[in-house]
Amino acid sequence: MIIVLKPHTSKKDETAVLREIRKLGYTPHVMRGVARTVVGAIGDERTHASLEALSTWPQVESVMPIQKKYKLVSREAHPCDSTVTTRGVMIGGKKFQVMAGPCSVESEDQLIRTAVAVKEAGATILRGGAFKPRTSPYEFQGLGEKGLKLLAKARRETGLPVVTELLSENHTELVAEYADILQIGTRNAQNFQLLIAAAKTGKPILLKRGMSMRVEEWLHAGEYIVANNNPNLLFCERGIRTFENYTRNTLDLSVVPILKRETHAPVVVDPSQGTGRSALVTAMCKGAIAMGADALIIEVHPNPAEAWSDGAQQVTLEGFKTLMQDIRPFITAAGRE
Amino acid sequence: MIIVLKPHTSKKDETAVLREIRKLGYTPHVMRGVARTVVGAIGDERTHASLEALSTWPQVESVMPIQKKYKLVSREAHPCDSTVTTRGVMIGGKKFQVMAGPCSVESEDQLIRTAVAVKEAGATILRGGAFKPRTSPYEFQGLGEKGLKLLAKARRETGLPVVTELLSENHTELVAEYADILQIGTRNAQNFQLLIAAAKTGKPILLKRGMSMRVEEWLHAGEYIVANNNPNLLFCERGIRTFENYTRNTLDLSVVPILKRETHAPVVVDPSQGTGRSALVTAMCKGAIAMGADALIIEVHPNPAEAWSDGAQQVTLEGFKTLMQDIRPFITAAGRE
Amino acid sequence: MIIVLKPHTSKKDETAVLREIRKLGYTPHVMRGVARTVVGAIGDERTHASLEALSTWPQVESVMPIQKKYKLVSREAHPCDSTVTTRGVMIGGKKFQVMAGPCSVESEDQLIRTAVAVKEAGATILRGGAFKPRTSPYEFQGLGEKGLKLLAKARRETGLPVVTELLSENHTELVAEYADILQIGTRNAQNFQLLIAAAKTGKPILLKRGMSMRVEEWLHAGEYIVANNNPNLLFCERGIRTFENYTRNTLDLSVVPILKRETHAPVVVDPSQGTGRSALVTAMCKGAIAMGADALIIEVHPNPAEAWSDGAQQVTLEGFKTLMQDIRPFITAAGRE
Amino acid sequence: MIIVLKPHTSKKDETAVLREIRKLGYTPHVMRGVARTVVGAIGDERTHASLEALSTWPQVESVMPIQKKYKLVSREAHPCDSTVTTRGVMIGGKKFQVMAGPCSVESEDQLIRTAVAVKEAGATILRGGAFKPRTSPYEFQGLGEKGLKLLAKARRETGLPVVTELLSENHTELVAEYADILQIGTRNAQNFQLLIAAAKTGKPILLKRGMSMRVEEWLHAGEYIVANNNPNLLFCERGIRTFENYTRNTLDLSVVPILKRETHAPVVVDPSQGTGRSALVTAMCKGAIAMGADALIIEVHPNPAEAWSDGAQQVTLEGFKTLMQDIRPFITAAGRE
Repeated sequence: MIIVLKPHTSKKDETAVLREIRKLGYTPHVMRGVARTVVGAIGDERTHASLEALSTWPQVESVMPIQKKYKLVSREAHPCDSTVTTRGVMIGGKKFQVMAGPCSVESEDQLIRTAVAVKEAGATILRGGAFKPRTSPYEFQGLGEKGLKLLAKARRETGLPVVTELLSENHTELVAEYADILQIGTRNAQNFQLLIAAAKTGKPILLKRGMSMRVEEWLHAGEYIVANNNPNLLFCERGIRTFENYTRNTLDLSVVPILKRETHAPVVVDPSQGTGRSALVTAMCKGAIAMGADALIIEVHPNPAEAWSDGAQQVTLEGFKTLMQDIRPFITAAGRE
Repeated sequence: MIIVLKPHTSKKDETAVLREIRKLGYTPHVMRGVARTVVGAIGDERTHASLEALSTWPQVESVMPIQKKYKLVSREAHPCDSTVTTRGVMIGGKKFQVMAGPCSVESEDQLIRTAVAVKEAGATILRGGAFKPRTSPYEFQGLGEKGLKLLAKARRETGLPVVTELLSENHTELVAEYADILQIGTRNAQNFQLLIAAAKTGKPILLKRGMSMRVEEWLHAGEYIVANNNPNLLFCERGIRTFENYTRNTLDLSVVPILKRETHAPVVVDPSQGTGRSALVTAMCKGAIAMGADALIIEVHPNPAEAWSDGAQQVTLEGFKTLMQDIRPFITAAGRE
Repeated sequence: MIIVLKPHTSKKDETAVLREIRKLGYTPHVMRGVARTVVGAIGDERTHASLEALSTWPQVESVMPIQKKYKLVSREAHPCDSTVTTRGVMIGGKKFQVMAGPCSVESEDQLIRTAVAVKEAGATILRGGAFKPRTSPYEFQGLGEKGLKLLAKARRETGLPVVTELLSENHTELVAEYADILQIGTRNAQNFQLLIAAAKTGKPILLKRGMSMRVEEWLHAGEYIVANNNPNLLFCERGIRTFENYTRNTLDLSVVPILKRETHAPVVVDPSQGTGRSALVTAMCKGAIAMGADALIIEVHPNPAEAWSDGAQQVTLEGFKTLMQDIRPFITAAGRE
Repeated sequence: MIIVLKPHTSKKDETAVLREIRKLGYTPHVMRGVARTVVGAIGDERTHASLEALSTWPQVESVMPIQKKYKLVSREAHPCDSTVTTRGVMIGGKKFQVMAGPCSVESEDQLIRTAVAVKEAGATILRGGAFKPRTSPYEFQGLGEKGLKLLAKARRETGLPVVTELLSENHTELVAEYADILQIGTRNAQNFQLLIAAAKTGKPILLKRGMSMRVEEWLHAGEYIVANNNPNLLFCERGIRTFENYTRNTLDLSVVPILKRETHAPVVVDPSQGTGRSALVTAMCKGAIAMGADALIIEVHPNPAEAWSDGAQQVTLEGFKTLMQDIRPFITAAGRE
C-alpha cells in the first residue's frame, strides 16, 4: 500500500499514521517529496488487514494498493496458456472452437434441427438455455428440466458437448447432471455463492463478464472458481453497458488481448449478446478471432422472428453456415485451425 | 409495438411484415409518412409474443415497444404511496426513517456499542452485514449465522428492527429467521431466483439498485417481488457505476423523484456505498431528504480505520450524532418528522 | 510518481529504471516489498517531464501519479470560498442566487415576458441562448447577434445581469460586449482555446461540466481559466452521460460536496439540462440547494411546447413561480438567504 | 413522430394534443391500443418544428422520433462506399492504409527519423501533432507553427502526406496551409464552429469520435462537414469513456461494422489513443482490420519513454516494423492489399 499524506501534515499526525500502519502488521517506509510525504507500507496485502480505511483520516490524501488480490488465475502464477477439455473438445489449444445453438431451448424439433445444422456447419459445442434469467417476471423463463433433457438428447444425436446456463444454487446438481459446461450469466457474475456452487461440481465454467464489471473484478470472480479447486475456467466477453444505444451492449473486444496478458485461462467471445443485432455478428466474430480469442459462442435459431426470447440477435441456420465460411480466413491468419 | 419500415420498402415486403404481425396475434395499423411507413401493432404486449425479432428482417428499420412490462409496482396500478411496516416502524409515511449500523457485524462489543449509539442519535432501524459479498475470495466474508445471532441480540437490547443482506437462496430460511428486513445487494439485483426466494418469506425486501441498472430494469426486478405476493418492497439507491473515479460509485439522487413518479413503493438512499467516502455522507443525506426520499441507510462503525470491510465509507459514532443533527432542518423543510 | 516493478525483476532491469528516473530529474527511492519492488520518484511532477511512459517498459507494472496538476483552483491554494460578482450580484456568498430564462432567445416578446416574470418570482440573473450548439446542422442555431441585443434590452428593462453561451473563439469580443457572464457549454468544456479566449475577456466564466468529464479533468479545465488571469470562475454541473436513458443526462449532484472539498470556486447546478424533463426540475433544485450549491440555472419559457429548442426541459412562467416558493424552505435550511 | 398518450386520457386532452400536432404542421393519425392511445404525426421531421416538447404535457407519456436527422452522410443517400484521396493516397478503396508518426512533433531529428522509419515499414501517411490539446495548462502544448513546418519538411523528404490536428478556428488557415488531412480531436468532436471552419478549407477531415458520443451524434457531427460542402470525411474511432480503468479508453471496435452499415464514409481506427497502452496496439490493429476498417492511425516514437506527451501509448520504430508484419495476414484475409 502507498499512503499519500496531505501537504503540511504535522509531525504528530504523521506519527499517528505510522503507528496505525505498524499496528495492522505492515512496515512503514517514509519518502519525503517536494509537496507531499508518501508512506510505503511493506507487507502482504493479501493476508493483512486492508489499509484503505486510512483514507478516512483527515491527514491522509489517498491510499493506493500495489498488489493484485487475485493469484491463481493470473499469468504470474501460471505463465503458459491453460486449456479446458470436455468430451474431447479442447478450448484454448491450437484448434479454434465454435459454440452455437438457440438462445432458449423451445422444442425438440427446434433444438435438434439447430444442433444438426450447426454441427454440419462446423460448430463443436452446442449451446442452449433451459433456465433463462429474464428482466421481467412475465417473460418466458425457459423449459427448465425438460430443456435439459432435450439438450442431452441433442448431444446423443450429434455428439456435441453441451453448454447451458446455471442461474440458481438450487439447480446446481440438476444442471450439472446434463451439462458439459456450466455457464454463469452476466447478471450472476458476482453472485459469489453461485460461483462457488458451480465450481464445486468440477465441470468447466464459462464465466460471462458482468455488464459493468472491470477486468480486475472479473479476474477476482474467476479466482472464486479456481480457489474452489476448479481449474476449468473460461472467461466470456459478452458486451458491457455504456451510453451507446445503437446496440444492446457494447462488445468490448479490447478485453481479449487484456485477458491474454493477465490470465492463462481461455477467452471466449459472445457476439450475439454483445450486440443484440444479428447483422453485426459476423464482423464481431472476425474481430474476436483476429484479436486472439480461443472460441466463440453464437446464438442460432431456425426462425429468429418467432423465437421465444431475444429473436433480434439470433442468426438463421443458413446465416450461420455463411458466417462459418466467412470467418475461416481469419482463423487461418490467427494461426489457428 | 411500433414497427418502422425502411424507405422504399416494396409492397410485397410490407405485406410480409403485416402477415407476421397478425400471425403473432396483433392487429397491424399502417401509417404512411413522408419518408417511411410506420406500422402500429395493436395488442397486449405483456401477454403476446414480442415483435422485437422483426428488427432482424431486412425491410425493418426499428421496432419500438409502447407498453411498460411492469404493472404491480407502477403508480398507474396504485396511485397512492405505499408503506412498509416492521415492528412498528413505518417506512414511507410521514416520519422519516434512518437505518444505521456497521458495514459488517464483527463482534458483540462492536455491534452493541454501535446499536446503542445510533439509537440514541435517532436511528430507528439497525443495519449490519452477517453474510458479505466480497470482490475477492480472500476477503472477510462475514460472520454468518453468528453475525445474525448478534443482530438479534442487539435488537433485544435496543428494540431496533434489523435489516441485513441475503445473498444465497440457501440462506433464505436462516436469514429470515433473524432479520426484519431482507436486503438484496447490488450484485444480486437481477438474481431473479434470489428475489423470488426472498419475496416468498413475506418479509419486507430492501432492493438495492444494480450497479448499472436502468430505472426500468429496477422496476422490473421489484415486480418480481410483488408478483410473488410480497407487497413489502423498498427501493434503495446506492450509486451507479460511471466513468467518474473520485468516488467509488456515483450516487444517483435524481432517481428519487423518478421513482416517486413511476412507483408507489418507498425510496431509501444509501449514501455510504453510494460514495465510498465518509466525508461526503452528510451532504448526500441532505440531498436525499430534500429530493423526497423516505429513509436513509448509513454505515456507522466505532473505529472505521480498523473495520473488517469498507472502512473508508463508514462514519464514526460521534460523526453519526452530528450528522443526525445536521440533517434535521432538511427533514423539516421536506415536511417530514 | 510511484513506479511499481514486476515481481522477479532483475537487478539490471531495476537499475535501468532508476537511471531513467534520475535522467528525467527525479530522485529515486527504492522500497522492497513482499512481492514487488516499488520506487518513489521524488521531484515536482508539475514541472518535470512525466514518468508515465515508463509504464511501457517491460519490467514496469504500473506508474501512479501522486501530485495533482491543478493548483490555482484548488482549496489547498485558497482555503476560503471565493465569490464572483457581476453588476452587484454576488455568487458564492450568503445569498443563494437563481439564474433563469429561456433555452434560446426567440423573440423580443418571448424574452422580455420571461425576464420580467422570472425577476418577479425572485430570479437574480437572466439566462438565454443567442448562439446554440445543436447536434444536427439542420436544427435552429440561435438568433446570434440579434439575440444578444435582445438580452441587453431585457437587462435594461429588468436590471438583471445576463449569462449566455460563448461557443466560438471568433465570437468572443461580440458576446463579451453584451454578456455579464460567459457560459462555456458541455461540448466545449475541453475546447482549451475557447477557454483561454473566454478567460482573457476578464468576464466571469460559467464552466459547464463536459458530458463525460471526471472531476479532476473539470478542475484542470477551470485551471485554464484562472491560469489565464481570470479568477471569476463558476463550475456548473449539468448532468453526465451514463447508461440510464430515463433522463437525457444523469444529474450528478454528488459533485456539489466534492467540488466544495476540492475547490474554492462557487458551484452552480443546471437541473434543466441535467434531466431534460421539466417535471423533475423542482426536486433537483431542492437537492442541489441542500447539498451546498451556490446557485441554480433554470430554463423557463412562456410556452415550452412551442419552444424552438429543448422544449421538454423548460418550465412555464407559472411553474417557475411555484418552484421558487417550493425551494424556499430548503434555502433556509441550508443557511442561505 | 410517435406520441404515446397516458392510459385513461380524456377525449378533451387527446383533442388538445391533436390540435397542437396540426398547428406544428403535422397530420395526426390515431391508433387506439389495448391500454394506450398512440398518435402518429405524419410530416417531415427534418423541416418541421420538433414535437418533442409535447412530452411535457401531462397527458403525454412519451414522444419518439422516427426519422433520422442526418442524410448526406447516410448510406441511404449514397449506397456505395465513398473514398477520400490526398496526394495520390486513397482511403476507403481496395488498399488498406496506415497513418503513423509521433503523438507530438518534438524536433526535426525525432520527426524525420520516425517518418523515414514508418515509411520504410509500409505506412502511407504521416501523423504528428503540432498543436496539442492537453488536460492541464501546465503540460506541453505542442510546437505550433514550427511543428507544422517540420511536418512539411518530413513530407518533402518522404513523400508521405500529413495528417495533423486542428484545435482552434483561429489556426484554420495556418494548419490547412501545411496539412493534407485535418484531424478534429475527440474533445472538439462537437465543437460545431470548428467543424464548419475545417470543412470550408475543402481539405479531408479526420473526425475523431467524442469520448462519450453515440454513433448517431457522431454521424450528425459528420453531417456538419458534408453539409458545408466537404465530402472528404473520414470517421475515426479512438476509444470511448467507460467504467473500465485498465485502459485509458475503451476502444469500441464494434463501431466499425456499425458505421459501415450507416454511412458510406471511410472508417479509420486509432488503437493508440484507444488503449493508451502500446502493448495492446497490435491486437487492436488486427481486430480493426478484420472488422472492416479502411485505415489505421498509429502513434510511433523513437523513444517513447522520453516522449513529451502520451509516452505510454506510443510504439517504438522497431515495434512498428514488427506490427506491420504481424497485421499483414489479416489485411489479406479481409480482402485488402
